[in-house]
Amino acid sequence: MKQKIIFCLPGNELLAGTLSEKANVERGKLTMRRFPDGETYIKIDSQVAGKEVLLICTLHQPDDKLLPLYFLAKTLKEFGAIRITLVAPYLAYMRQDTRFQHGESITSEWFAKLLSSFVDELITIDPHLHRKSNLAEIYSIPTHILHAAPLLSSWIKANIPNAVLIGPDSESEQWVSEVANAADVPYVVLEKTRKGDKDVQVSVPHLDGKADKTPVLVDDIISTARTMIETIGHLKNANFNAPVCIGVHGIFAEDAYLLLRQSGAAQIITVNTIPHETNKIFIEELLLTALQSKT
Amino acid sequence: MKQKIIFCLPGNELLAGTLSEKANVERGKLTMRRFPDGETYIKIDSQVAGKEVLLICTLHQPDDKLLPLYFLAKTLKEFGAIRITLVAPYLAYMRQDTRFQHGESITSEWFAKLLSSFVDELITIDPHLHRKSNLAEIYSIPTHILHAAPLLSSWIKANIPNAVLIGPDSESEQWVSEVANAADVPYVVLEKTRKGDKDVQVSVPHLDGKADKTPVLVDDIISTARTMIETIGHLKNANFNAPVCIGVHGIFAEDAYLLLRQSGAAQIITVNTIPHETNKIFIEELLLTALQSKT
Repeated sequence: MKQKIIFCLPGNELLAGTLSEKANVERGKLTMRRFPDGETYIKIDSQVAGKEVLLICTLHQPDDKLLPLYFLAKTLKEFGAIRITLVAPYLAYMRQDTRFQHGESITSEWFAKLLSSFVDELITIDPHLHRKSNLAEIYSIPTHILHAAPLLSSWIKANIPNAVLIGPDSESEQWVSEVANAADVPYVVLEKTRKGDKDVQVSVPHLDGKADKTPVLVDDIISTARTMIETIGHLKNANFNAPVCIGVHGIFAEDAYLLLRQSGAAQIITVNTIPHETNKIFIEELLLTALQSKT
Repeated sequence: MKQKIIFCLPGNELLAGTLSEKANVERGKLTMRRFPDGETYIKIDSQVAGKEVLLICTLHQPDDKLLPLYFLAKTLKEFGAIRITLVAPYLAYMRQDTRFQHGESITSEWFAKLLSSFVDELITIDPHLHRKSNLAEIYSIPTHILHAAPLLSSWIKANIPNAVLIGPDSESEQWVSEVANAADVPYVVLEKTRKGDKDVQVSVPHLDGKADKTPVLVDDIISTARTMIETIGHLKNANFNAPVCIGVHGIFAEDAYLLLRQSGAAQIITVNTIPHETNKIFIEELLLTALQSKT
């Protein structure tokens, strides 16, 4: 069995620290900063020769993370690391996986090709797979997808008495039904029409006989939060209790978090795939199990 | 002769427009924006099959430019572009071209390898070559370096009567002497000691007999501007006239521009390798000549 070492990019220290401690894996030392002109400086302060690297870097707001990640992976290899497994709890560029209009860049594929060129393996949690059924269609390296659904079910069961799950659109049905069934609670799925990045219309839900329950809005990604905010509006109009909003990946683009808080959510809960003050559901054990089954 | 087409990344429209017009080369149409979650969207709206692409993207604050540039280059090729020449008037990652301490990432080389993997040729202006004597040591694609020195000489000759050029450090001597000689004006080179990114000490210059002249501070890059600001202080103490500050590449990191303006500079002038309100010296003719000599 090869010796392992964990490195992370800035912003992932909490997760890296917990994994290092619980898995009893060496925590790699690293100096990384930006010069005033915006260029990245990297110095590896641990011995890595002959070791397998777990490189932790969640990939929300990905554009300015790619180059530091590339520099670090290449330099680790240069100093003798034998294998680099990227742990990206949130994986970016899953949206544009086909051409909707002529001339579009299928960024999903180009991003996958680039990542595949400098890391050896990828572990991620609930990537936003649309038209692709698995990551192997775009990634040439081995990929492992972990699922947060059981964590959501457990959290809902333990914390929300009398819950009814609300899925924002038909695309979410399979996922929401899975969470609901494991939590042993009912669910409803709404119909969504997307008219633009920020312009989404949601049908009024049919919630007869569920007005005494606590609605729990569940989605894989909270980005602009427009879908959730609109759904909350519909629930309000139907005299529902204030809902609990749960997202796996809390991106909270621009002012989304503020707007969602102001919209009447009783609680906002996310999984710690992206560090945020709403993190209440944690992926450490899920990752540990996956890492141990790999050895 | 192959048909040419010019594309640019956002922020380079002025240069792309002028080159397209003066060289009578088709201006490629492109939709590029960021989604609220920070991911880049690209759509190519011109026919590119069989055409040679001039791709204009200056590379200050490079980290979040790399991925859009990569997506665009790959997609242009996918749609049949036969050759991509990157015109990067300012080239990034020239600083860390060796290891000063064990464990450092030689980002200069990794950046060059990555760029070389998705464009076919590179044209740049006065890259900040330290220990490497030319770009071919790190770039595997053909590279062409253009020099702004003659443009600076002409501008100084036309605009600053009675000038004396001031070079900030011994490294700049060759360059400053070239500009001074072509402008037919005297020059002085100072001694600089760097103690950190922002902590630079400059020796008091010996300027006897030049106190009636207008000092012209010349440097290849104005990044934090600390060197220029310190030099202005020394000139003030020696009762010099307020100096004219000229930089080829005006990066103006953080609050550098404000601080430099407040420091007593009579004028701040840059070359338009990086778009900025101080641009007074223009590279279009230099680029046109280079592009024409390539065909």
